[in-house]
Amino acid sequence: MRLMRVGPRGGERPVLLAEDGRHLDLAGLTGDIDGAFLAGDGIQRARAALDAGGLPEIDVSGMRVGAPIARPGTVACIGLNYARHAAESGVEPPAEPVVFLKATNTVVGPYDDIVLPRRATRTDWEVELAVVIGRSAHYLDSPADAADVIAGYTVSNDLSEREFQMSDSGGQWAKGKSCESFNPLGPWLVTADEVDDPQNLALSSRVNGEQRQASSTSDMVFDVYYLVWYLSQYLALEPGDVVNTGTPEGVAMSGRFPYLTEGDVMSARIEGLGEQRQTCRAARP
Amino acid sequence: MRLMRVGPRGGERPVLLAEDGRHLDLAGLTGDIDGAFLAGDGIQRARAALDAGGLPEIDVSGMRVGAPIARPGTVACIGLNYARHAAESGVEPPAEPVVFLKATNTVVGPYDDIVLPRRATRTDWEVELAVVIGRSAHYLDSPADAADVIAGYTVSNDLSEREFQMSDSGGQWAKGKSCESFNPLGPWLVTADEVDDPQNLALSSRVNGEQRQASSTSDMVFDVYYLVWYLSQYLALEPGDVVNTGTPEGVAMSGRFPYLTEGDVMSARIEGLGEQRQTCRAARP
Repeated sequence: MRLMRVGPRGGERPVLLAEDGRHLDLAGLTGDIDGAFLAGDGIQRARAALDAGGLPEIDVSGMRVGAPIARPGTVACIGLNYARHAAESGVEPPAEPVVFLKATNTVVGPYDDIVLPRRATRTDWEVELAVVIGRSAHYLDSPADAADVIAGYTVSNDLSEREFQMSDSGGQWAKGKSCESFNPLGPWLVTADEVDDPQNLALSSRVNGEQRQASSTSDMVFDVYYLVWYLSQYLALEPGDVVNTGTPEGVAMSGRFPYLTEGDVMSARIEGLGEQRQTCRAARP
Repeated sequence: MRLMRVGPRGGERPVLLAEDGRHLDLAGLTGDIDGAFLAGDGIQRARAALDAGGLPEIDVSGMRVGAPIARPGTVACIGLNYARHAAESGVEPPAEPVVFLKATNTVVGPYDDIVLPRRATRTDWEVELAVVIGRSAHYLDSPADAADVIAGYTVSNDLSEREFQMSDSGGQWAKGKSCESFNPLGPWLVTADEVDDPQNLALSSRVNGEQRQASSTSDMVFDVYYLVWYLSQYLALEPGDVVNTGTPEGVAMSGRFPYLTEGDVMSARIEGLGEQRQTCRAARP
């Protein structure tokens, strides 16, 4: 199933995008697509309601699309998880996953504007496969156990202001990763049962229609199940949390492309998970 | 005023600790001490109710004390913000504030157990002055404007597993800072009007009654108002967010003291803000 949230920011309504393209209202089933919904077997309940034909159609034309999950408790990110991206960043692939956090209020809808921060000079894109956690996960026994705690997947753009991340940071990345609007998510939360193999998905990004990144999740250094297991050895992952699993080569930091600037149109897509698209604008003065 | 939250985790009740030592119930005024309460002039309303004698006394004996603020949207931390702590960490004081994030579900009550993570070998304490944000703060014009967005202050222990933070981390600290129970807060949120000078507070920590840290917030490299202004240039700070402003010298990483071990009793206090105390226990097997 493809789950989505439509409506103004903070007032999104849960919707199911059916295979036939109809939008079906989930508001009778849940107030939101959030951690409580996922932990409470919400996906199974939505499927049962879908199968029973009990979900009313809803007209979403003209409505904003929000992130497909309510504001997470944690957005955990994996750095340098594609070998060629590590190379273009000037470093070796890491021996262990590199973990950093983004402020969770960076999460915005898939078509919301990207706000270029004041004083930004090197704002960069990173298309990433995002994992949405469906059940509490702490000290999982093995990577094989990760499948049971993953609710689904979505497209993420882990935006970064490289000047803030690398130059002014004392080496800690969070500051350059946590600016307003720096984590577009969506358009859909695609439930895990519909993703045959999370390690075999084409993912790509474009700026003004020109290709930037084009790779496959098969190129990850550490795979999705390993990452979720690994994170669970450190953090107590909770339903609704988001894990950004790293980005492939083709970012501006490589020197091959210009950084984002006002008016640029950014798009990111992952096979089976849809496409998101944003326009870059300056922060309010 | 001293605000606190008592009751089981996730079911805390808002309470005001009056100057005469009585506990007064705030439940008639607000459901919780959280961002919405602070943003909605909750502190002013609590004061008015207190002055009017309209708050009923509540017996909190035997009740757990929770963190004095509901789970924040963001816990932002400042690294190496005391010169002698930078020195004991083997580095120069930073030219700009070093910013990292902790997972927000690390926040626990002031007397809750500290859980030593599995495989932990170097779990360390850090007494810190925590700032609680009371109003949205994004792109503040100057450090002087920070005073208007600070709701108050509390005691924080920014626990760290140094092995996870430094050795296995690829240089990113979040992983060693985000383990379960790693941010005891409290006992009280002391409103900003009661803190004459946040840069002149003695702060200290003890393990099993022996002094570890003993310093003053006057030793900060970057002061509280500067830090809040600085953070607001990067993050969109929200009511209820917490800023841990850095720790003074005297942590175990200095080599002068052993790391925390099961059964250790940890305490941290700040002048005027009270004392917190935790027992260290092993993570469940």
